[in-house]
Amino acid sequence: MSTSPLDSFLTPRSVAVVGASTTPDKIGAVPLRHLIEHGYDGAIFPINPAHAEVQGLPAYPSLQAVGRPIDLAIFAVPAARVDDAMSDAVAAGVKSVVMFSAGFAEIDDEGARAQRRIAERARAAGIRLLGPNCLGFMNIGRAVYATFSPVLSTGLVASGPVGIVSQSGAFAAYAYGMARERGVGLSVWVATGNEADIQVADCIAWMANDPATRVIMAYLEGCTDGEKLKQALALARAVRKPVVIVKVGRSELGAKAAASHTAALAGDDAVFDALFRQYGVWRARTIDEFFDVAHCLAVSPLPAHGSVGLLTVSGGVGVLMADEAAELGLDVAPMPGEAQARIRARVPFAGTMNPVDVTGQVTADPELLPLAAHTMLAQGGYGALVIFLAAAGLTPAMQAMQLRLAHELTAAHPDRLLMFSTLADAAHQRALAARGCLTFPDPSRALRVLAAADFFRRQFSVPPSLPEQASERTALRLEPGLRNEADALALLREHGIASPAIRRAVSREQACAAAQALGFPVAMKVLSAALPHKTEAGGVVLGVNDLAQAAQAYDRIRERVAAAVPDAAIDGVLVAPMVAGGVECILGAHRDPVLGAVVMLGAGGVNVELMRDVSFRLAPVDRQQARAMIDELKSAPLLRGFRGAPVADVEALADAIVRLSRLAFDAGETLAAIDINPLRVMPVGQGVLALDALVAGRDPEAAGAA
Amino acid sequence: MSTSPLDSFLTPRSVAVVGASTTPDKIGAVPLRHLIEHGYDGAIFPINPAHAEVQGLPAYPSLQAVGRPIDLAIFAVPAARVDDAMSDAVAAGVKSVVMFSAGFAEIDDEGARAQRRIAERARAAGIRLLGPNCLGFMNIGRAVYATFSPVLSTGLVASGPVGIVSQSGAFAAYAYGMARERGVGLSVWVATGNEADIQVADCIAWMANDPATRVIMAYLEGCTDGEKLKQALALARAVRKPVVIVKVGRSELGAKAAASHTAALAGDDAVFDALFRQYGVWRARTIDEFFDVAHCLAVSPLPAHGSVGLLTVSGGVGVLMADEAAELGLDVAPMPGEAQARIRARVPFAGTMNPVDVTGQVTADPELLPLAAHTMLAQGGYGALVIFLAAAGLTPAMQAMQLRLAHELTAAHPDRLLMFSTLADAAHQRALAARGCLTFPDPSRALRVLAAADFFRRQFSVPPSLPEQASERTALRLEPGLRNEADALALLREHGIASPAIRRAVSREQACAAAQALGFPVAMKVLSAALPHKTEAGGVVLGVNDLAQAAQAYDRIRERVAAAVPDAAIDGVLVAPMVAGGVECILGAHRDPVLGAVVMLGAGGVNVELMRDVSFRLAPVDRQQARAMIDELKSAPLLRGFRGAPVADVEALADAIVRLSRLAFDAGETLAAIDINPLRVMPVGQGVLALDALVAGRDPEAAGAA
Repeated sequence: MSTSPLDSFLTPRSVAVVGASTTPDKIGAVPLRHLIEHGYDGAIFPINPAHAEVQGLPAYPSLQAVGRPIDLAIFAVPAARVDDAMSDAVAAGVKSVVMFSAGFAEIDDEGARAQRRIAERARAAGIRLLGPNCLGFMNIGRAVYATFSPVLSTGLVASGPVGIVSQSGAFAAYAYGMARERGVGLSVWVATGNEADIQVADCIAWMANDPATRVIMAYLEGCTDGEKLKQALALARAVRKPVVIVKVGRSELGAKAAASHTAALAGDDAVFDALFRQYGVWRARTIDEFFDVAHCLAVSPLPAHGSVGLLTVSGGVGVLMADEAAELGLDVAPMPGEAQARIRARVPFAGTMNPVDVTGQVTADPELLPLAAHTMLAQGGYGALVIFLAAAGLTPAMQAMQLRLAHELTAAHPDRLLMFSTLADAAHQRALAARGCLTFPDPSRALRVLAAADFFRRQFSVPPSLPEQASERTALRLEPGLRNEADALALLREHGIASPAIRRAVSREQACAAAQALGFPVAMKVLSAALPHKTEAGGVVLGVNDLAQAAQAYDRIRERVAAAVPDAAIDGVLVAPMVAGGVECILGAHRDPVLGAVVMLGAGGVNVELMRDVSFRLAPVDRQQARAMIDELKSAPLLRGFRGAPVADVEALADAIVRLSRLAFDAGETLAAIDINPLRVMPVGQGVLALDALVAGRDPEAAGAA
Repeated sequence: MSTSPLDSFLTPRSVAVVGASTTPDKIGAVPLRHLIEHGYDGAIFPINPAHAEVQGLPAYPSLQAVGRPIDLAIFAVPAARVDDAMSDAVAAGVKSVVMFSAGFAEIDDEGARAQRRIAERARAAGIRLLGPNCLGFMNIGRAVYATFSPVLSTGLVASGPVGIVSQSGAFAAYAYGMARERGVGLSVWVATGNEADIQVADCIAWMANDPATRVIMAYLEGCTDGEKLKQALALARAVRKPVVIVKVGRSELGAKAAASHTAALAGDDAVFDALFRQYGVWRARTIDEFFDVAHCLAVSPLPAHGSVGLLTVSGGVGVLMADEAAELGLDVAPMPGEAQARIRARVPFAGTMNPVDVTGQVTADPELLPLAAHTMLAQGGYGALVIFLAAAGLTPAMQAMQLRLAHELTAAHPDRLLMFSTLADAAHQRALAARGCLTFPDPSRALRVLAAADFFRRQFSVPPSLPEQASERTALRLEPGLRNEADALALLREHGIASPAIRRAVSREQACAAAQALGFPVAMKVLSAALPHKTEAGGVVLGVNDLAQAAQAYDRIRERVAAAVPDAAIDGVLVAPMVAGGVECILGAHRDPVLGAVVMLGAGGVNVELMRDVSFRLAPVDRQQARAMIDELKSAPLLRGFRGAPVADVEALADAIVRLSRLAFDAGETLAAIDINPLRVMPVGQGVLALDALVAGRDPEAAGAA
């Protein structure tokens, strides 16, 4: 099925262990022992010049001495011996190497240089490399144990549909233990360590093609190749495999252009959020959630559609669940009247809207539960059902009832997502999970998982609409550095973003003539690429009402700017009409050093800063994504005719977002940042107007360019 | 120690069971069996006219036939037999009654009437009553089992310092099971059911006085007596017992005065939030958190002070923890340089700032862990320490290390809060809990618990500053209904909240004269108690610049209002100076039907609605609470001289909050709502100005008055 270049790595037909050891718990002994004990069915070659036999297998003095094809060589040797081992591997025609060896980039600059050297040698020889300084990997279904993690000694995980990749070894071990404790079955498990060659993104792409993997879990600390990550996520999205990610670390990669509001607001974290949202990745906020969601995706179907039924034995907890569901954006639709009547016929004082509350009556009449559950799915038609049973999961009779219910409901409605919330021991939880129903003692946790499942349902119910790849851009070159406001607005106009008619003046007379021609009142602003903060330099006068004021304003601007910033190159004074009406926002774009062009829409005025009322996307975006960005703003009602104001031209705003995102994308490496602040969204039919703009280009060749 | 009227109820010296049964699992059999089996040391009297002996004890035909004092009678009989049982109890001089019997207010209006009748009879006879329709209670330390909950049949909880009270029986049973599963020891457990007499608040007050209870957990669905709840929380606060509450259900109690912005924004939930914040109650967002926090308070000390140390074996998870801690407002202070050097001397590439990352090196050198932990507490001086060990909690060697560490650290630093985050089985978790250290596999969960513990540390480190009780108010009577703007502003001025000089005009000539006297520009507004929404009725003209405009504005206002609202009684037109400068907010107060007067501060303009940038407190508040309200606003920076604007008179704002809160409090039952919108906060030294106001009084005697 797949011809991924990682196949010889993750599904090797033969494995050699360089540094194979007979001493238990040595890193050269552990993988060998697991390969032998757990039934790896390929060839195993211990490499150890001092022994003829290791752990009962014939040993070889070197990889070359094996004389047979070696798909994978595990380097379980100290850093000092890695160079020799690599020479041996190259000579023996090894296809892939896992380097446990520590002492490289994680230590110091010298280690980093040694790491680059080794990676370069591997690359030249066509060898794929995992590590160094990594815990290795496992392909659980094929019993490939290329790891020395002590977590295996505490018990093995079940084979299953969930693949895990982690940059951190400690986290990977923890994840392995967590999966085992919860009964989550794994397909592959990879710890990428220093990522000299193979990165988390490579493993995601491999798992997207792996028939044994249905759910992909990734733990990400940083990322050096954004394009590769995007491609891997696009691949997973194309084959409809859900990806759940924990991303930690707000890295300081890339200094931000200080002049840009957009870049300062973005931060790496908001940009990763945008990436994940656009590629349909669920970003887990906590580690519990990471596993809860993956476990659910592994055992349960996605909900058939978006309505959620809540069934409870406690009215209060029903309300708690309904509030929580509403907060998560789930659709707690009411039951049809007929279905309500059916339940009320049995319990007159039951709550039947949704949540359906069968009350404590269920203790006396346990059959109430299947009645209500079947009615909710068959007549209520809910896509998902969460059943809160309080402490009932603890008694044998109710446990039997739950198992029966799980069996009947999943048989009758195989496309619905069912969850229980009740106290239950691990054995009972596993029995229910085996029937496709997870159990969480805390109902809030169940609902959070449901929100994630519903997110994937929505993702997979429409064709993927992903941003274009960098390779598809229409190259456009922005000059390095800042340009003045007039030039910035002119560039935006060329790309279809309108601004008011403006005039440039380099004398008092020209300024007066310009104001006269435009019609009063006008705004006058100093024109200088060196002064992105014009107001602070005294370079702005608003509401100029006549010729006398225009002359005075021109002189004041020149004087104040000369006093404040005597060395700044001034291109003159810009004269612009005062524009009344409309709603202000900020529209911007900047280049993220890892993920490329990003577009931002924010509320106007102080709200973008104080309320952080902003929305980000990777560029370019289409009209639909642009509308979604507008909807995300808490201040969006202002655009829709708030308190009797005219409705703003939202379609023109969406168009401007699309155009700026395209401009930013096409500028590629030459983009630093663009701010349109304010962008005035006029009443419907009157479009948008850029009232001020900043355009900063960059030289992609310059050292340390941001 | 306590003379609480609930003593005969929660610590009875004798218990009678009316409806005592020999049939196992009948509600009249269960409490009797538990009382006998678990060693209740008081007298037990089965009441059953048909048997001479029940469960091996001599039975009596009636309560009166017992002939000895009965502290507590359990009514395990159907609703139809409750009246007779109550007659018997009154005649027998019973002190307290627990009514399991269902079929009262939870069913219908007739049931509600029957419930009120029974409660009235009990009250008249001086009998305290729990229920009806309740699961009863347990006093675990004294083996009082006045419940028929089936949850007991799945195992008993340990005796301990945590008291639980719940309105819901299903939730109470669930909580009992949850406590047992987690090893949380309980003192008392009460399910209050229909609350005909005893409410959750009564039980909180009792637990505040109970020497066996150190931590109080309450599950609240609604509340009918806000004063009683406040008093109970004040009592718990006074004796420094932490209270953790789950409050569900945004009840619809009390229609809101539609004219009031404040009341509409409040909602019951925001008011309960304010209550809890002011009384030092931690409101748990989820049920897991409810138990996590209570468990921690039961086994660990509060942190000695606010700085938090984070120790990790994974750099990435360290960052995750630091981000989470920052979001929770915890102080992740850096380590002193000397302490950092000490750790780096052992692991040169360790992260030593805080988080301290001892890296995977800990596998090779486990003693790194105690070195780092001791250094962080002794030299770093942290008030709390969270140690993330990934999967290490699973191996016997690391389990032993953790136990040793817990022992050594708690012995050396008994006033620090220690938590582990690692995979660990239940037995190991309990062993660590017995040494005062909780373990959470998910570090985010540990940090959330730490935030709660730190909340209580802060609460208990200052003397309580609680709002006055209703009994302490200086009575003030607001006339029912709305008053016009001039009268509203006059009332506020009487109570020390300034507004601009205004004039009333009932003719065009008066209006012109008033404008002339005030000086142009002025604002003109229709004056009418019937028109709280003046702008919508065409009743407002701003920026009136001369006499001609004033005359025209007067006419236009009269005409437009007459056209829009022909029947409204008009008191004239108000003329006010236009006020420039300052920052706008909204200041309001309203009467919550349960919790009384509430004061609200919100951002000006659209932010109060769109961003919900508001802060609430129960009235009255002092200056310090008023300042805290200001600090809570996301838009607070606008008051502090945002982007070069003058700093606003924040002290005058705090003063206005205090004054309005006092006015609202003193108005008591006659308050409906007060809005000051906008309140303009002028630059420092210039105070605040109420630019518009609405005052709505209510008639406390009117039926259904909001």
